[in-house]
Amino acid sequence: MPDYQTLTLDLGARSYPIFIGEDLLSAAEHTLRPWLGNGKVVLVSNTTVAPLYLARWQACLEHWGIAHHHVILPDGEQYKDVQHLDQIYSALLAAHCDRKTTLLALGGGVIGDMTGFAAACYMRGIAFIQIPTTLLAQVDSSVGGKTGINHPLGKNMIGAFYQPRAVLAEISSLCTLPARELAAGLAEVIKYGLIDDVPFFDWLEQHMPALLARDGAALAEAVAWSCRNKARIVAADETESGVRALLNLGHTFGHAIEAGLGYGQWLHGEAVAAGMVMAATASHLAGWLSAPELQRIRRLIEAAGLPAEAPPLGAERYLQLMQVDKKNEGGRIRFVMLRGIGQAFLTDALPTAALNAVLR
Amino acid sequence: MPDYQTLTLDLGARSYPIFIGEDLLSAAEHTLRPWLGNGKVVLVSNTTVAPLYLARWQACLEHWGIAHHHVILPDGEQYKDVQHLDQIYSALLAAHCDRKTTLLALGGGVIGDMTGFAAACYMRGIAFIQIPTTLLAQVDSSVGGKTGINHPLGKNMIGAFYQPRAVLAEISSLCTLPARELAAGLAEVIKYGLIDDVPFFDWLEQHMPALLARDGAALAEAVAWSCRNKARIVAADETESGVRALLNLGHTFGHAIEAGLGYGQWLHGEAVAAGMVMAATASHLAGWLSAPELQRIRRLIEAAGLPAEAPPLGAERYLQLMQVDKKNEGGRIRFVMLRGIGQAFLTDALPTAALNAVLR
Repeated sequence: MPDYQTLTLDLGARSYPIFIGEDLLSAAEHTLRPWLGNGKVVLVSNTTVAPLYLARWQACLEHWGIAHHHVILPDGEQYKDVQHLDQIYSALLAAHCDRKTTLLALGGGVIGDMTGFAAACYMRGIAFIQIPTTLLAQVDSSVGGKTGINHPLGKNMIGAFYQPRAVLAEISSLCTLPARELAAGLAEVIKYGLIDDVPFFDWLEQHMPALLARDGAALAEAVAWSCRNKARIVAADETESGVRALLNLGHTFGHAIEAGLGYGQWLHGEAVAAGMVMAATASHLAGWLSAPELQRIRRLIEAAGLPAEAPPLGAERYLQLMQVDKKNEGGRIRFVMLRGIGQAFLTDALPTAALNAVLR
Repeated sequence: MPDYQTLTLDLGARSYPIFIGEDLLSAAEHTLRPWLGNGKVVLVSNTTVAPLYLARWQACLEHWGIAHHHVILPDGEQYKDVQHLDQIYSALLAAHCDRKTTLLALGGGVIGDMTGFAAACYMRGIAFIQIPTTLLAQVDSSVGGKTGINHPLGKNMIGAFYQPRAVLAEISSLCTLPARELAAGLAEVIKYGLIDDVPFFDWLEQHMPALLARDGAALAEAVAWSCRNKARIVAADETESGVRALLNLGHTFGHAIEAGLGYGQWLHGEAVAAGMVMAATASHLAGWLSAPELQRIRRLIEAAGLPAEAPPLGAERYLQLMQVDKKNEGGRIRFVMLRGIGQAFLTDALPTAALNAVLR
């Protein structure tokens, strides 16, 4: 049996394992089977991932004699909407799926978010398992139970906190990932270093070439390190009433970029990368972050092949787009800012001058 | 301050009060204000209830200086769908509602279910309060946290278990309720007696004329008795993994009637009434329920002005419709049957002959 690491997201009765390895499918007897119930399985995937990986997991279910169906959605953030969510519900109902059904999300963040939300709402809640196939999904969206869809008036506005039974981060699936998407995933990886993990940030500065060359061991290490960080933060604050908000570093700006350009123009990770540079720049202008640290942040983001410059939407438009962000409380915009690399903090007292300078 | 009763639904950190009285609005300082946060309020109602009661609650919020908006949906079960749910989301987003927003559901079961589900999913969960204005909603749907919408392929198939902060059962609002809807609510009231409360069933046999004459004290007593029963069962089994399934007495047949005739033809309570007679008849044919008890059940349902005879959909169609019911586990149909009045039990071993005799 191939090697893999097992982390645990500690949420009491809803705790679950995160498996990270280069060939989890060969270890499926231990990584997948114990988390399936005795009902049907419905695989949810997209038109890009399904041709590559669906048959392997289906064969695995066949081998165990488990009845299964599948739903294949079009690939892209623009399909993360109520119409395509309904395709999942319709498929489940057409297949007479009951409460013992388990959904398997096989794909990136969009598939994971939609499948998780469908699991949260179908018959008021059935089990689901995440099999993230992109770096972004492996290090971020598959872990922590945030599920949902976009609304024409705002990203991820409709959703649920709903935890999977297990997460299987198959590192080998990163081999088929387009370079642009690998880089987008690295944005969230870098974020963990920036929030509160200086050793990880240092490690990333040294291993960025290996990661971009898709060295399996380096990727597994980066994914495990990221998931440990995320699991620790989520365990401390499952529903984002406190510390979990730090995970939104770069996201207030990033969501505005995504919405302002129209979903699908920039990848989420790309927008977050530029958003982190905006947050770092604002932190610097507010006197919280030193110039050399701002430089290191910008350099690492550029080394990952990510955009360090935000698109020029205009300050007014940015402010308007940020007003509907979920992180706002009582009308004020809360930002995640940096006192240093590894020292993120939450504030609603960002000086207007610093904010405006960044938005221009 | 007018009199009212306060019951508590005991769910640990998510416990909440159920207020029952003839004029809770005058006591709103105690029954509503403590459960609002410090954010905006959005009232959700329908075109029938809003003209009668919306202005009163708005005036109350005005008096407290609380910013508020409202969403008015068309009235009827046929609008309990994803399109009208989206109207609520769109209104919340257009009003820049954040996570501190509280939704008030002012209406019957459809408004309560949709508002609760919108609250469960908007920004992954905001607060909501139930102000049920129909008897059905007061004794059943507003208590216990079942929220959701219908899908073209099945009733209440999409939803969440999501508890309100408080329930305000305003008895005076039953004065404006059409007689047919009052009777429909009585079906769920009778159900509590049938499940496990013989004294309540006896009381209902004696007080049915007073209830139909809308005697305030009798209605308050029936609502309080029903809510106590429901609160006890829900507290024991919030997510329907066990005893809560008994609350589905008459519902497996009832849902089939509603779906088979097309939603909106029969009221939910009417379908449940006929469904309970079907369950009682099947219980009798299976040798579990005596003929005199079956007679008492049928007589009480008829005394409430409810249908005791199911529409003739044909046995095949009934079976087909019941296959997609949420209560099914692994393909078999589970029924709530009766060993006597006040002695409901769950079984997947209803003899086929008894079932077929009832469906014909």
